Amino acid sequence: MSAALDNIRVVLVGTLYAGNVGSAARAMANMGIRHLRLAASNLQSDWSEAEKMAVHAGDVLETREEFATFEEAVADCVAVVGTTARQGLYRQHVKAPRDVAKEILSLAETGKVSLVFGREDKGLLNEEVAQCTHLIRIPVDKGYTSINLAQAVLVTCYEFFVNAGEYEMPREKAPPAAQAQKMQLMKNWAEMLIGIGFMTEEQTDHFMQGFHRVFSRGVFTKDDAALLLGVARQTLWAVKHGGAVAKEVSK
Amino acid sequence: MSAALDNIRVVLVGTLYAGNVGSAARAMANMGIRHLRLAASNLQSDWSEAEKMAVHAGDVLETREEFATFEEAVADCVAVVGTTARQGLYRQHVKAPRDVAKEILSLAETGKVSLVFGREDKGLLNEEVAQCTHLIRIPVDKGYTSINLAQAVLVTCYEFFVNAGEYEMPREKAPPAAQAQKMQLMKNWAEMLIGIGFMTEEQTDHFMQGFHRVFSRGVFTKDDAALLLGVARQTLWAVKHGGAVAKEVSK
Repeated sequence: MSAALDNIRVVLVGTLYAGNVGSAARAMANMGIRHLRLAASNLQSDWSEAEKMAVHAGDVLETREEFATFEEAVADCVAVVGTTARQGLYRQHVKAPRDVAKEILSLAETGKVSLVFGREDKGLLNEEVAQCTHLIRIPVDKGYTSINLAQAVLVTCYEFFVNAGEYEMPREKAPPAAQAQKMQLMKNWAEMLIGIGFMTEEQTDHFMQGFHRVFSRGVFTKDDAALLLGVARQTLWAVKHGGAVAKEVSK
Repeated sequence: MSAALDNIRVVLVGTLYAGNVGSAARAMANMGIRHLRLAASNLQSDWSEAEKMAVHAGDVLETREEFATFEEAVADCVAVVGTTARQGLYRQHVKAPRDVAKEILSLAETGKVSLVFGREDKGLLNEEVAQCTHLIRIPVDKGYTSINLAQAVLVTCYEFFVNAGEYEMPREKAPPAAQAQKMQLMKNWAEMLIGIGFMTEEQTDHFMQGFHRVFSRGVFTKDDAALLLGVARQTLWAVKHGGAVAKEVSK
């Protein structure tokens, strides 16, 4: 795990529904962030809801730290990143998570950083917002700005996870085809298209330009080229032998 | 609403839990995407769960379209974007939502595009994956790859919403302070710091360099400068008059 992600604390302040704590724990685990803090908990539902929604992220719940107040929950942090959906006092300095993630991750390289999420109904109080060193707002549609607590945790953690650069998408297994392989393919297809009577020798340039265009859209891999080469070979074989015979089909 | 976002259809295939449909509807509404399709529904829980979880996004639920099969649900789409968490057949060409959002949005400018999400337990079947024109995988931590359906819908829709460029973060209300205002501030603070006996005239350059450094971290706004200028003025006044007297405090 990245040192920066390991230094992140997700702090839920005054959360009302245990189910949201569990969903938030699962969202954190999805994004490689595993340290949960509850501050001024005000749970109105049974803790079993948290365990149910956490699914396999029970360890995030079990290792949680609990604090009586917001102040205590963030006391050891070098940056306190508050999330807010509302306008108003202290809130004009908000930024998008995407725009501050790298800067905050660099602080998290050497010190603890808290990502703070307020109550389901009232968010963070003004006095809590005033104690934050950074404020972020998740971009949402003007038509429906009320985002679920665990969803807010997910998007925020996602931006930190992606920007931590730990994750690499799997690469295309097949490397792109080189021009020579593509040209060989065009040659074989031209033979095949003449052989089946799709076009004449005179029409070759015209039609092959079209096929070349189709085959050049996006990345065209070696596997793609091999697949289409097989089609041309097999078509010519089938034309010569009067159709496919299972046991004779060349592979 | 952006034409591209309005052309997006979120297609849930074989969903088991109505609550997830509702949470997905809310997530879509948060991200400005309002057209929901259910394909091959296999709901094991009561529809009231969907309505409960949708909260104020009931209109997304009410205007949903239902289809018997995956094929029918995506038949009118110019791009079929499947989400998959698993490795395997057909799945080596997956990309991150962030990396394909702009390309797919440009297709959505002129035609319908479906974002397809599979079953909670099994995802999309191989024959469904084979029909997708694009495959995406949400970046998640290797340690916990199982992401909740509605959370997957949220992150995916979030990437399309943000990349559609419809959303603008609120700008800092206070513009950055110009150098002249900062230098005026330094001059006032120097007077103040000498006035209260914090430093001597000879030490001014040394100390003011430190204060200048502190005040130059990040964006220093006109409001920031005005605030600190007020501190210097008030301090000098207080030193002269022997402390604050509420009614005489200058603002």
